[in-house]
Amino acid sequence: MNSLPSRVFETAVNELAKLPGIGRKTAMRMALHLLKSRREDAEAFGMSIIRMHNEIRYCIECGNISDEELCTICNSPKRDKSMVCVVEDIRDVIAIENTGQFSGVYHVLGGIISPMEGIGPNDLHIQGLIEKVESGVVAEIILALPTTIEGDTTNFYIYKKLHASAIHVTTIARGISVGDELEHADEVTLGRSIVNRTLYENTIRKKNQ
Amino acid sequence: MNSLPSRVFETAVNELAKLPGIGRKTAMRMALHLLKSRREDAEAFGMSIIRMHNEIRYCIECGNISDEELCTICNSPKRDKSMVCVVEDIRDVIAIENTGQFSGVYHVLGGIISPMEGIGPNDLHIQGLIEKVESGVVAEIILALPTTIEGDTTNFYIYKKLHASAIHVTTIARGISVGDELEHADEVTLGRSIVNRTLYENTIRKKNQ
Repeated sequence: MNSLPSRVFETAVNELAKLPGIGRKTAMRMALHLLKSRREDAEAFGMSIIRMHNEIRYCIECGNISDEELCTICNSPKRDKSMVCVVEDIRDVIAIENTGQFSGVYHVLGGIISPMEGIGPNDLHIQGLIEKVESGVVAEIILALPTTIEGDTTNFYIYKKLHASAIHVTTIARGISVGDELEHADEVTLGRSIVNRTLYENTIRKKNQ
Repeated sequence: MNSLPSRVFETAVNELAKLPGIGRKTAMRMALHLLKSRREDAEAFGMSIIRMHNEIRYCIECGNISDEELCTICNSPKRDKSMVCVVEDIRDVIAIENTGQFSGVYHVLGGIISPMEGIGPNDLHIQGLIEKVESGVVAEIILALPTTIEGDTTNFYIYKKLHASAIHVTTIARGISVGDELEHADEVTLGRSIVNRTLYENTIRKKNQ
């Protein structure tokens, strides 16, 4: 594609095209949208990104993003500190919070072990998790990492580090999505859903709770 | 969806979600991407939008975006000033430029007549086009507006204003896209492609040029 007729426009398009999943054509549409918007709005847009990067803090307990030293979850007296859900990043925290099914606290690793991308255990917040367990407040660790080789590797690494302590290490259930048809499920998921079948009785009980 | 655990993050997500075609989930992925990037990169991103809005200029001849008083197209001695292609916005300029098939100049209207959105002829750069024609340098006006009711209305308005002058008013050809199958084309396009059929001879000649 030819270069654009204005350098400042070109720069903005290039910056927008760096966003995940955004190609050059979409970036151009976005830049044009911002150009057509009012000056204050374009300013608010640009400043919101800069301010976010400069002012955001991370909860010293769980690594979740926060405006204070402790995030709203870790700071809440209603949350069960003995149950810790281990996730890759804050998007997972938000996703699980939206279910309204979890009353424990989180531990955000900030990534998963990936030799391909040069991410080792020391690049992640795993030490903090171990210290949390050693302090004695934790009864159960729920691993909610992605079902990839990297996720499995990280699960196993954490399990090895923790299995000597007297806590439960569980993983979230993998199975057929609610509403999905069996014929469309992949073999691995379908296989796991049979191996890890649950008592029908328990399903009814949970529904009626 | 619940509110996010940080106000500055929430603000950034809300701003990103204002971009055309971006939902809240995608905005969250983008905000996280920017948060993970280096401070300089996030700053460059935000500033590029603010600078674009503050520093961009519009060509006094055609309305295209520009860094100077005249855009690179109007300023080029190679471009034929007697042929003016009328487009809705600068995205169309970029699209036509990318074909490499047009050696004239442009006139960017900055929108099309849309009573529904309260956009009348006076909100668009139509007067400048008329003055350009009256100055006598223009031999042909090529209307390249969208094939919508609004586009047709704008075409007709411009035609009415200009048909007294001794210039050609043409529109770009509408027909079946190159490579498309007839059975998948909509009826209006297929109908027009038959009414506006071209001599086979001309097609061969153009290909061999």
